Amino acid sequence: MKNFNPIRGTYDYMPYMARFREQVRQTILKSYENNGYNLISTPILESLDFLGNSDGGDNLKLMYKTIKRGDKLDLTKENLTEQDIVAEGLRYDLTVPLARFYANNRDNLPNPFKAIQIDNVFRAERPQKGRNRQFMQCDIDILGDSTIHAELDLLKTCIDTYEILGFCNLTVRINHKEILNSLIACAEFNEAEFSTICVTLDKIDKIGVTGVMMELIDKNFEPNKINKLVDIITDVQANGMSVLTKYNVDENIVSDIEFLIKSLDQLTANKHNIQFDISIVRGQGYYTGTVYEIYADGFAGAIGGGGRYDKMIGKFSGVDAGAIGFSIGFEGVVMLMSEKLKESNNNNLILLYTDADDIIDVFNAKKELMRDYNVSLYLRPKNMKNFYDRIETVASRVISYQDYRAGKEIKLLK
Amino acid sequence: MKNFNPIRGTYDYMPYMARFREQVRQTILKSYENNGYNLISTPILESLDFLGNSDGGDNLKLMYKTIKRGDKLDLTKENLTEQDIVAEGLRYDLTVPLARFYANNRDNLPNPFKAIQIDNVFRAERPQKGRNRQFMQCDIDILGDSTIHAELDLLKTCIDTYEILGFCNLTVRINHKEILNSLIACAEFNEAEFSTICVTLDKIDKIGVTGVMMELIDKNFEPNKINKLVDIITDVQANGMSVLTKYNVDENIVSDIEFLIKSLDQLTANKHNIQFDISIVRGQGYYTGTVYEIYADGFAGAIGGGGRYDKMIGKFSGVDAGAIGFSIGFEGVVMLMSEKLKESNNNNLILLYTDADDIIDVFNAKKELMRDYNVSLYLRPKNMKNFYDRIETVASRVISYQDYRAGKEIKLLK
Repeated sequence: MKNFNPIRGTYDYMPYMARFREQVRQTILKSYENNGYNLISTPILESLDFLGNSDGGDNLKLMYKTIKRGDKLDLTKENLTEQDIVAEGLRYDLTVPLARFYANNRDNLPNPFKAIQIDNVFRAERPQKGRNRQFMQCDIDILGDSTIHAELDLLKTCIDTYEILGFCNLTVRINHKEILNSLIACAEFNEAEFSTICVTLDKIDKIGVTGVMMELIDKNFEPNKINKLVDIITDVQANGMSVLTKYNVDENIVSDIEFLIKSLDQLTANKHNIQFDISIVRGQGYYTGTVYEIYADGFAGAIGGGGRYDKMIGKFSGVDAGAIGFSIGFEGVVMLMSEKLKESNNNNLILLYTDADDIIDVFNAKKELMRDYNVSLYLRPKNMKNFYDRIETVASRVISYQDYRAGKEIKLLK
Repeated sequence: MKNFNPIRGTYDYMPYMARFREQVRQTILKSYENNGYNLISTPILESLDFLGNSDGGDNLKLMYKTIKRGDKLDLTKENLTEQDIVAEGLRYDLTVPLARFYANNRDNLPNPFKAIQIDNVFRAERPQKGRNRQFMQCDIDILGDSTIHAELDLLKTCIDTYEILGFCNLTVRINHKEILNSLIACAEFNEAEFSTICVTLDKIDKIGVTGVMMELIDKNFEPNKINKLVDIITDVQANGMSVLTKYNVDENIVSDIEFLIKSLDQLTANKHNIQFDISIVRGQGYYTGTVYEIYADGFAGAIGGGGRYDKMIGKFSGVDAGAIGFSIGFEGVVMLMSEKLKESNNNNLILLYTDADDIIDVFNAKKELMRDYNVSLYLRPKNMKNFYDRIETVASRVISYQDYRAGKEIKLLK
């Protein structure tokens, strides 16, 4: 007997789960659309010239690439390199394709443009719980708006959407790359060192301030600079945004973040915990301004996040444009909602019939029942026990054609 | 200026088209579900062992394959073959993955199992109109039913679905592989020749009976056998199913097809043209019984088709199971429905505001309007002319926050 599992890191979805995922997908899409965002779609396969030159950071290493086909694949060439044998790449996120889409179509799109993308992406990650190699991303982005109003619109829309999905008590953690940069500069590190320091700061949640200090020592930075940075971070963590200007952070950025948090608090009636958090760094190379993550009770990782990536649009289109995005972590959300899955209403009915029944009237009965149910026709099986054992995975009700015509009650499966 | 087009044979979808495609997708899914079929989902990447050993026929040549990653890719090996460098394949249809899914999960699925799959597949075809390299398939299949009742259920469901999409006057053309085989055997060809003769017969629609004759001569078959086959085909085309038993076609097959056509005629109140058609051959290697295609006015190709493929399930699971499928040609259907796209109702409203407006009340106004519209917030742009030129691609109505609060009317964009 061979193994018929899907390949590692990918999954088959049985009826109840596929239906539930579709329901979550449609709920997110509807909420995004109701908030005035517009669905677009780009292909899964993209040019490697394009994917490879993006700011995809670590994701580039995880990219799936296709081999050349037919005569184009020459394996007899000497000193063969990967470049010689690859053709296209599978997208590893939806942001890079969006930048290409916008560069290609901006003249026919409103400015700003509010995009929805709900689609599969691929990363050849080491398979582990919560890390699928094919997974769905549910993104909204605003392109062409450099004001903090864009962040307000985007985050309010995402919080609304999480609420509709049934999440309460969200924690929204907001930071800004320029704030991070100012603090690091204030500790007298030079600009070339910012990104490696950010990689370490990104781990504050896991390793604490002490851990950050140790790692920076390991990275051979000067102890007096490290101490200074740790003092600053500790001060900001203890005293919040009010101390930021002391460290040369631009006042406009501070007031933007204050406006954002205050407005979100008011608009959500203080139902959630919305806060400035210096420990939100986010890895990818492309963020340039605000960065944010949303957390829910009972799940360690973020259930969504995003930020401002103003430079990527300019890189592709030649014209700079303010751009921000948010991605709802679909796989995490579905996992957290799995309790609801059990309650999810199944409106499916099995209509049993036999060879002896009038087939035309069997279909008439089906049509009548289809007003209230999803109706699946089944020729009455020989082994009814075996039938009932398995039928509950796809239906919650059953009746025979004869019983239905006799006015008998529909039987509810347990 | 670089080129930002998607790669050849793939497409970006702008808001109006992406929304329309989503609407068609949801309509098809809902109709399939209402008829008691169950959504499942399998990954886009599959093992090459599995995809390569299937009966995918010509599609195998068009398969995208990914390269090995990291240390597994050794380009220094001597006499390198494709086998050495490939890792996974992208699925080229949804039937082969369904067979794997069923082999893997049949113990937890009802018997018969009625599956829905609506998902992307990939074929590296030479790009041309109507041949996308990434395209959506909308399949239903019944696994575990060997009776003609399966075909009746499946085709009725598909016809219903086309009707809901707005298609009338469908032509449903039905044939059976065993009928073809009997006729060819009757012309005294031997079994090894059946498949190459079917390849030629598949072209009757395009090249006519004379063309078929010419091609068989080119293929060096004996003229007396060719003449005999042409006489038989001509007889069947002229006189229909009644002459089939004359050529040793199994009576049960003839009566099954007659039952199917008569029942479909009755169930659809003779609104469509449902007929036996000896010229429906269908290329793929895996069909074993009935084959069928559905045509619509104004489109030369089929808008959907399928057939019975009883052997594929046994090949994977070791246990034979009757299996039939139908695939609605999503891309063709969307193309044919493009007139409706223009009429499609756009419920999007732009709510304009300025920096001077109270942002919290702007969001309150948005919330009120969201009861009736999808509402997109826009900071009033400096260039109103430019704004109006582009905004019609995403919205049909506009009002400013001040005008809305003053009770003025919402402006309809042309």
